[in-house]
Parts: sequence; C-alpha cells; structure tokens
Amino acid sequence: MLNKHEAGDTVALMAEVGRKARSAARPLAIASAERKHAALIAMADALLRNQDAILQANALDMANGEEAGLSPAMMDRLKLNPDRIRAMANGIRAIADLRDPVGEVIAEWDRPNGLHIERVRTPLGVVGVIFESRPNVTADAGALCLKAGNAAILRGGSDSINSSSAIHACIAEGLKAAGLPEDAIQLVPVTDRAAVGEMLKGLGGNLDVIIPRGGRSLVERVQNEARVPVFAHLEGLCHIYVDKSAKLDMAVSVVVNAKMRRTGICGAAETLLVDRAVAGTFLPPILNALAAAGCEIRASADVLKLYPDAVPAVESDWRTEYLDSIISVAIVDGIDGAIQHIETYSSHHTEAIIAEDAKAVERFFNEVDSAILLHNASTQFADGGEFGMGAEIGIATGRMHARGPVGVEQLTSFKYRVRGNGQVRP
Amino acid sequence: MLNKHEAGDTVALMAEVGRKARSAARPLAIASAERKHAALIAMADALLRNQDAILQANALDMANGEEAGLSPAMMDRLKLNPDRIRAMANGIRAIADLRDPVGEVIAEWDRPNGLHIERVRTPLGVVGVIFESRPNVTADAGALCLKAGNAAILRGGSDSINSSSAIHACIAEGLKAAGLPEDAIQLVPVTDRAAVGEMLKGLGGNLDVIIPRGGRSLVERVQNEARVPVFAHLEGLCHIYVDKSAKLDMAVSVVVNAKMRRTGICGAAETLLVDRAVAGTFLPPILNALAAAGCEIRASADVLKLYPDAVPAVESDWRTEYLDSIISVAIVDGIDGAIQHIETYSSHHTEAIIAEDAKAVERFFNEVDSAILLHNASTQFADGGEFGMGAEIGIATGRMHARGPVGVEQLTSFKYRVRGNGQVRP
Repeated sequence: MLNKHEAGDTVALMAEVGRKARSAARPLAIASAERKHAALIAMADALLRNQDAILQANALDMANGEEAGLSPAMMDRLKLNPDRIRAMANGIRAIADLRDPVGEVIAEWDRPNGLHIERVRTPLGVVGVIFESRPNVTADAGALCLKAGNAAILRGGSDSINSSSAIHACIAEGLKAAGLPEDAIQLVPVTDRAAVGEMLKGLGGNLDVIIPRGGRSLVERVQNEARVPVFAHLEGLCHIYVDKSAKLDMAVSVVVNAKMRRTGICGAAETLLVDRAVAGTFLPPILNALAAAGCEIRASADVLKLYPDAVPAVESDWRTEYLDSIISVAIVDGIDGAIQHIETYSSHHTEAIIAEDAKAVERFFNEVDSAILLHNASTQFADGGEFGMGAEIGIATGRMHARGPVGVEQLTSFKYRVRGNGQVRP
Repeated sequence: MLNKHEAGDTVALMAEVGRKARSAARPLAIASAERKHAALIAMADALLRNQDAILQANALDMANGEEAGLSPAMMDRLKLNPDRIRAMANGIRAIADLRDPVGEVIAEWDRPNGLHIERVRTPLGVVGVIFESRPNVTADAGALCLKAGNAAILRGGSDSINSSSAIHACIAEGLKAAGLPEDAIQLVPVTDRAAVGEMLKGLGGNLDVIIPRGGRSLVERVQNEARVPVFAHLEGLCHIYVDKSAKLDMAVSVVVNAKMRRTGICGAAETLLVDRAVAGTFLPPILNALAAAGCEIRASADVLKLYPDAVPAVESDWRTEYLDSIISVAIVDGIDGAIQHIETYSSHHTEAIIAEDAKAVERFFNEVDSAILLHNASTQFADGGEFGMGAEIGIATGRMHARGPVGVEQLTSFKYRVRGNGQVRP
C-alpha cells in the first residue's frame, strides 16, 4: 500500500479517513462503559495472541531501519520483543480498568426556580495522534482515545509502519469483537508528509484536536501549522530552586534525582537555582553529588567562584533543554530572583522548589505560571501515571482545555443537563 | 485618533497593544481578590460619576448613526441613557461580588508516596473581545475578564467608538484607583478591519483566546480566520421535542415560552418536533397557542394535514435560525426520530425535551450532543445568568475548553501544585 502513491491520492484518502472517523464517533460516544471495556480487553488479548505476526512485522521494520542507517537510539525505540508486547497488552488492560469518564457528573447545583443543573463529561470527538518511531503508541493512544469515547486517527512514522499495522490489526480485532465500529481507531495507511499536512488542516472539520508525540521538529511543525487545537509541549525546560530554608540533604537527593534519574524525559530538570543566602554552604555538596553522578555543570560567574571545576555558562545555556547529563546552575536573590529567572526562561512545563519556609512556597506556587509546580519533590514526577491518572498521552503546556498530563479526563468535553418540571423563563 | 490612519500603522499599533496586554497580564494574574474587587467597584462608581460625559459621547455616536442611516434596531442597541448606565454599573458590581476564581482548588488528591496534588484555577492570559454596536460590552466584558485575572483587548465597532471610549475611560480610572496596570483592559483605539485581522492572527502570541460578540457575519469571519482559540456560537438552531409521555398543558406553556418570550436570542426555539403517537391530539392546541401569540407556523406535510392553516415548510426551514416569530414544525417517530432530526439539523447549542417518561429523557440526555439539554423547561434558560454563573460573555458551542455559557470560571485555566516532603522518583 506504500507504493506508487501520489499526493492527490493522499488528499482524497485523508478526507475519507476523516469522514469515517466522524461517523464512527457518534456510536462510540454513546457506547456503554462495558462495551468499551470489553473492546480494550479483546485488544490486549489479540496483541498476545498475534505476538508472532507482530514480531515478524517488526523484524521487517528493523531490517529496513538497519539499511536506512537509523541511530541506535531510534533502533531501540523501534524494537519490539515479547516483553514489550506484554507491556503493551498490560497498558491497555490498565486503561480498560480506569473509571469510564463519559457521563460522569463533574458538577451539579440547584437554581431558586427549581431547575437542577448538571455538568457531565462527554467525548471530545475525533482525536488525531501524530507519532514517530515508537510502534507502541498505536496501542497506548488508541486505547486512551477509545476509553474517553473518542474516535482516533493515528498517523505513525514510516520507520515503524509494518509494526504499527500489525498492532493496529489487533486493535481492529478488539473493536470488532465488542461490536464497535472498526473505524473508531484508524491507522493512516500512508506515511508521506502530505498525510500530516491534511491532518493539520483539520480534515474538513472532521478532526477536533491533534496530539503530536515525538521530537521537537514534529511538535514545532504541528504547533505552527495546525488549524485545529493541539495538546503538546514543545520542550520541558524545568527548573529546580533551592531556597535558603531548604534542608540540605533533601536538596541534594531531590536535585540529583530531578536531573539524573532519566535525563531524556521532559520532566528532567535542566537548570538549578540556588538562593544566594546559602550558596556558599549548599552549592558545593549539591554540585559534588551531581558531578559524582556523572553530570556536567555549566555555571554562572558567581557559581564558578564557589565551584571552579564547572564549565562557564553562556546565555544560551539558560534557554537549553539538554535532555542529557548536563545542568546549568545560577545563584538567585531568594524567591524573587528565582521567580524572575523562571518566568524569563521557563517553558512553563514543570518547576520545583525545595524549601521549609511556607511563605516562599506559597509565593512560588502563586507566582510561577507553569503547568506543574512541585514542593520538596523531584520534577521527574511530572507524569500522568505518577499523578494517578492511569496512562497519559502526553503533557500539555498550553492553557486551553488541557494543561499538564493529558489523560482520559483531559480527552473529554462536557455538556449541561438541566431538569425542570415545566419552568418557563419570565 | 481616527483620522489619517493607515494600514501599516494599525499593524504596529496592534502589536503594541498585544505587548502591553501581555505585560499587564502577569501583575493581574497575581493580584489579590481584594484588589480586583476594589478596581471593579471603582469602575462602577466612575461610570455613575461620569454619566454626563458618557451621554455626551453617546449623543455624538447617535448623531453619526442617524447620518449613516443605521436601522432602528441598531440605533436602539447603540443608545445609552441614565438607566442603561446604571444597569452597566450594577452589572459590574454583580461581577465584583462573584467568588474570585483564581487560586480556587478544583480537585485534590493524595498519592501512595505521600505527594498531595491540587489542581487550582489560574487566569487564561490575554482575552480578545470583538464586538459591534453595543457600547456596554466594553464594561461587561472588561469586568468579566478582570475578575478572572485576564488582561483584555476590546475591539468595538466604529458606530459606538465614542461611547465605548468614554466607558473605557471609567474602566481605566477604576484600574488606576486600585493600583492595577491600566493596560489590563485596553480598548483598541482604531476601528478599521485591519485591527480585527491582526487580532485574528494572534498578535504575535500575545492573545490567548478571542470571543466575538455580534452577528453571524462577525462570528463566521472570526471562526474561519482566527489562528487562536475562539469561544463562540455561530447560531442557536434550538429544538424542542414533545414526547408522547408529555403533559399537554406543560408542553403548550413551555413551547410558547421557548419560541415567543424573546425571539431574537440564541436560546429561542426554532423547530418544534412532536411525537407521532400524540400528534393528532397535541399539535392543534400547541400550534393554536403559538399562532395566538403571533407566531408563523411552517409545517411538514404530515403536520399540514392536522393543521391546514400553516405555511408548508421546505428543506431550508429545518436549517434556519429565524430569530423571529416563526417556527418550523415536524412530526417524528418518538425519541429515535427526535434524536435523528436534531443530530441532522442542530447547531448543538440548546435542545429541550418535554416528557414524563424517564427512559426517553435519559436517551435524549445521553444521545443528543449539544452544549445544553433541558428536560421540561424552556430553551430560553440557555443563559449564564439563569445558570447561576453571574454574568456571561457569551455561549460557546465548541467542545474545547468552554462549552455552553462562558462565565468567569470558563475564562480560567488551571495548574497543578504538588506538595511533598523530599520524594524522589524511583
């Protein structure tokens, strides 16, 4: 299906994908919780049952990737094995076991005229997910959209198209087994850029939101060009601020974890800010611990005086998401200086304060405008699973609709149900 | 300021308006509830104190309007008098007395590792409001945005620019009296279409959402061209369905109110659907009551047989928001037929069911996908004030972020505050 494909074909094909998604969205929106649960369990079963076929398809992608000279990191993202397939199946089962959000009463109140008003969750409609080489996104994203009652259009990268197609076949099997429309979760069968372009234009009103899952250039393109809402974060330039009121041992352990637990995730800390009042005593032990863990220190001039082993930081360091074992370090004038630095350089994803002074914490919580703020805890907790949301499809830094981890609830909208007994408006 | 103005000037001017709004947004976002309340009360006081200046400015707009040949309806929208100025001041006081939404904890929960997570309301940022001839929108919309901690950019029509400017001067006085930045609520000082165009492009990232307040052509332009999110409804093609289980007297009074209380508002019913099982007995008394109230009946063929005085409906009638004393009427096959008709023709704004059968009501509530659904109550309750939200800035039919009446809460976003005691992620 990937051969002899032309751009005009893609436009027509994507329009058809959009129409099919929209017409699947309605039966899906009113499907019972039990039916959606059954479909998800059937998908998980199908993944395990079809393990051999998935691994064969993956072997084809791996061979193509080898030939195309993919990097070892990309090859690792692409690779499937029985453990990873089992993890995918378990992920879908965990989503199946989440509370069904559709129909949940979010708020309710009575009016003096006797009207009873409820705000209840509804699906959003059609969700588009654009991803790169990880084939497991097909399963995760499809399952999350389904749980929230949304139709999904999944567009994977060309590197993983055989693996994604094999996984998608299992998803389709699960939908069919539960009597749900197979078009509820579609995998775009072509991988040219034109398909993405059509999604960014909104498929003629048949796409309600786009979620990009991948590197910076993908997210940037989607944010710049999409004519429909986007849930995304361009980068996680996360800060951790150590206040003079902090406990030093806690500061050491939390900073090291925030930076070094995993350096490649969006919640990893990139900049350490230390209160000038304790810089002399706090900085050496914290930076020694980071260095001992293998971290490169890029320091402002005043930090360098206290810790001469560091690399001098330049202006661009405060704006860089390293996603690596590197941290930029500055001394700031207390909570005011910390807030000012963060509001100047942050990507508004996640920031942490280590402090015992409740006033400093309250100011940090009130005045820093990021999706996630943490007190005395590692920035690496910025994750839907860690928040107790079950699975997440990503983290959003926009302020519209979804902010922070995007889980099942964030993939819903709401409507009002008003019950009366004959009220007319005076 | 309206003379000798060129398009290049407008681009530069609007960019500056955007920058000023963004820099006012931060102090506003962290302003205390008391300070915002004081500013609103001071605005209301200033409106009353400056009544003469406002009426003089309005007289100028009215004279210009007369000369330009504005319709009587437009002249009425434009006109101010002491009563209307008092109503504006009272409207602002009512907004002042609403609960301050910023900092409100919307949800909170504990994690097994001891982290305590709160989701708290924050302002959205910068809100743009594009309106036409009603000068009071300057006060209403500015006050609502301020209450939610948002900076506002208000762009009024040229017909009302003198009145709007005089009202805006009172708003600026109130902001200044309370020590808030005057740029927190700006009135765009030019009225050319290019100013709107710049807002639709998003003012270089300095505009977070646009709310159009006005007629269909304005809303359509904003929805089609805006590169930032829009809270709006294009039309309110509202349906009222009378089920066979309805009480006839209730059906008569609610249908007449839904259609005829005010015909020009978005929540007015435009189409009546009656269950075939009771059409013979229900339709004549309902349609007689509508006709007695001065309503023109446009009827499907089977309705015409029962009520020959009606005008035959054509296909376009089911798609028309009359905003007038006209109703289209069809017979449907029970709740299934009603849902099918509504999902085919509705603008997804507001629909009502008159029924005593709980099963029919539940199906209507679950399967109709409109912002507001009512049971045994008039569609004319589709209003933020009637919902108990205080004031509203409009009604949204989109599914993203805000749906239904857009009040102070809908003008907010949220962030997460996570409290720990040294937790690191394993």
